[in-house]
Amino acid sequence: MTDTAEFPPGPERPAGWLSADRIAKVRSQLPILYVDAVPVRVDDSGDVVAVGLLLRVTPEGVMSRALVSGRVMYHERVRDALVRHVEKDLGPVALPQIPASPQPFTVAEYFPTPGVTPYHDPRQHAVSLAYVVPVLGDCRPQQDAIDLAWLTPEEACAEQVQVEMNGGQGLLLRQAMAHVGRLP
Amino acid sequence: MTDTAEFPPGPERPAGWLSADRIAKVRSQLPILYVDAVPVRVDDSGDVVAVGLLLRVTPEGVMSRALVSGRVMYHERVRDALVRHVEKDLGPVALPQIPASPQPFTVAEYFPTPGVTPYHDPRQHAVSLAYVVPVLGDCRPQQDAIDLAWLTPEEACAEQVQVEMNGGQGLLLRQAMAHVGRLP
Amino acid sequence: MTDTAEFPPGPERPAGWLSADRIAKVRSQLPILYVDAVPVRVDDSGDVVAVGLLLRVTPEGVMSRALVSGRVMYHERVRDALVRHVEKDLGPVALPQIPASPQPFTVAEYFPTPGVTPYHDPRQHAVSLAYVVPVLGDCRPQQDAIDLAWLTPEEACAEQVQVEMNGGQGLLLRQAMAHVGRLP
Amino acid sequence: MTDTAEFPPGPERPAGWLSADRIAKVRSQLPILYVDAVPVRVDDSGDVVAVGLLLRVTPEGVMSRALVSGRVMYHERVRDALVRHVEKDLGPVALPQIPASPQPFTVAEYFPTPGVTPYHDPRQHAVSLAYVVPVLGDCRPQQDAIDLAWLTPEEACAEQVQVEMNGGQGLLLRQAMAHVGRLP
Repeated sequence: MTDTAEFPPGPERPAGWLSADRIAKVRSQLPILYVDAVPVRVDDSGDVVAVGLLLRVTPEGVMSRALVSGRVMYHERVRDALVRHVEKDLGPVALPQIPASPQPFTVAEYFPTPGVTPYHDPRQHAVSLAYVVPVLGDCRPQQDAIDLAWLTPEEACAEQVQVEMNGGQGLLLRQAMAHVGRLP
Repeated sequence: MTDTAEFPPGPERPAGWLSADRIAKVRSQLPILYVDAVPVRVDDSGDVVAVGLLLRVTPEGVMSRALVSGRVMYHERVRDALVRHVEKDLGPVALPQIPASPQPFTVAEYFPTPGVTPYHDPRQHAVSLAYVVPVLGDCRPQQDAIDLAWLTPEEACAEQVQVEMNGGQGLLLRQAMAHVGRLP
Repeated sequence: MTDTAEFPPGPERPAGWLSADRIAKVRSQLPILYVDAVPVRVDDSGDVVAVGLLLRVTPEGVMSRALVSGRVMYHERVRDALVRHVEKDLGPVALPQIPASPQPFTVAEYFPTPGVTPYHDPRQHAVSLAYVVPVLGDCRPQQDAIDLAWLTPEEACAEQVQVEMNGGQGLLLRQAMAHVGRLP
Repeated sequence: MTDTAEFPPGPERPAGWLSADRIAKVRSQLPILYVDAVPVRVDDSGDVVAVGLLLRVTPEGVMSRALVSGRVMYHERVRDALVRHVEKDLGPVALPQIPASPQPFTVAEYFPTPGVTPYHDPRQHAVSLAYVVPVLGDCRPQQDAIDLAWLTPEEACAEQVQVEMNGGQGLLLRQAMAHVGRLP
């Protein structure tokens, strides 16, 4: 899980935001609802031709690649959380085509204890609804991301990219490619 | 099932077309593969706001409403059949957003014998992969359709519209609305 | 939402249970993760022949019908929450066939404010992963339920049953029937 | 595609069977509807613990592994075709739990021309609805299969097993594992 912006930059915080203290406490008590979005470019037939991965440098100075991911807030619809996180990470003119159906392609269960599921988040038990989201507009990495790379499905599933993804997001990406018929 | 254009207007027939004789014969021997598309307009969050229904007059002079529907041809991919049928019925600038995944929301089995399933096609045993297809462009009814009406999900599922749909397509439309979370 | 047993009867509480105070507090701060299960009987071809609905009397003395529903606890997998809630409501020998895939047929978003979505829960913002769960064994209503009724899909979707379901669960049931091809 | 029994052993042929001549002819004219079933063993939580693969020797004497696969006949429902093919390949007491929903986890398009899709069948254009099917009973390889091996998801996705699968069925198996959350 890589949402690095639990709080927006400005002073105003919309309803649904929790203080750092509060979020730390509930994270040890309840599963936290997340969304994961796999941004893709598609051709005129809807076939996926590229996958967008965010490139970040971890606090430890290690390069990592990530999907668009983040928490669903109190009183926020899942589809609105998807729009918010895609725009947060890819910019305001990414033009995400949020799926008409709320049915996710899978549910990724990130456990604080490694090995319970293939997904892991040391901070919390997060349960993430995962969607493939075609983007039609101009995408620019925002905030802490230093690049947004568009890879073919084959490149994105290759070992050298997979090892740069954390917490099981490499697997989640391959599940997304399996779902769209593009698993190598 | 309402594909009325088994043959294109021009003299040339692309590979995959069968003569009227041939198609009549195989229709009594094999299930025929179809696609059904439910054309929708969505808002910025992907929420369905309108459903497009084609208005036709049957040979018997009865008004009927229909989804976009048609056969998958030999050596044609399902996603290409979807594009072809949407453009055939809604025009060349409908800009259909074909789903990235080949997973249909349901499979409608139209039997020549009524009552085996809720779907019925007196001409054949057709098995149809059904998709919700958002359209972004300008839609104009083509060929034999006399109108294309955009209805809200509530209107489209109302009794007076449902009775104008044949062969179980009214049910298929309501299944589509259930899938996108808009069943009234 | 009708999980009436936030705490198990015995003195011991497994990890993941929260005190009444704690749960009341977080309910106003975060979306709470739930599962909804639609218990069904299927024939040898997997076709749904009956739907199980729990009959309860609300504190106000009103009869209501409900699906199996409940919270996912901290450090609990979604599939384990499904088993736990089915056994809690239908008894220990219901033999639920939990789906192999974590992909729900829909996601029901119960908002504390009516009208945001078709689902409503005055106590909280609950986001529920909804599954159709065939049960093979003997089912007995447990705890506060006074009966478990097996209805045909047609009966379960009929107006007189739908009005006895609360918070949008009648809609969720009809969505489940649409998903399995049994919406009347 | 590995259905080797286009005709049943006995003299009687149920409605829906075609002569060898007929099937050869239509195979060059229409996409043929198939089902693919991935037989699995699940634990009490529905988690997949093993995948069943049929071991066959090709006419050329090469060992190959295959999923349960076969044609949908005229006037046969998809779910009945699933039952028939599972019992044909795994025996009459396999007790397959056919999914309640007709929604397949993917659609595999086997083209006679290699490279159009990742699936290939030199004999025909087959479009296959793919399902994960838990089996509860005793499974015995039937007819031409010489063994039925139960492998863990990890083993089934390993290179040495994948190379023994033909026509893209290795990929289809990995897509099934991705769908159930067990892709290694």
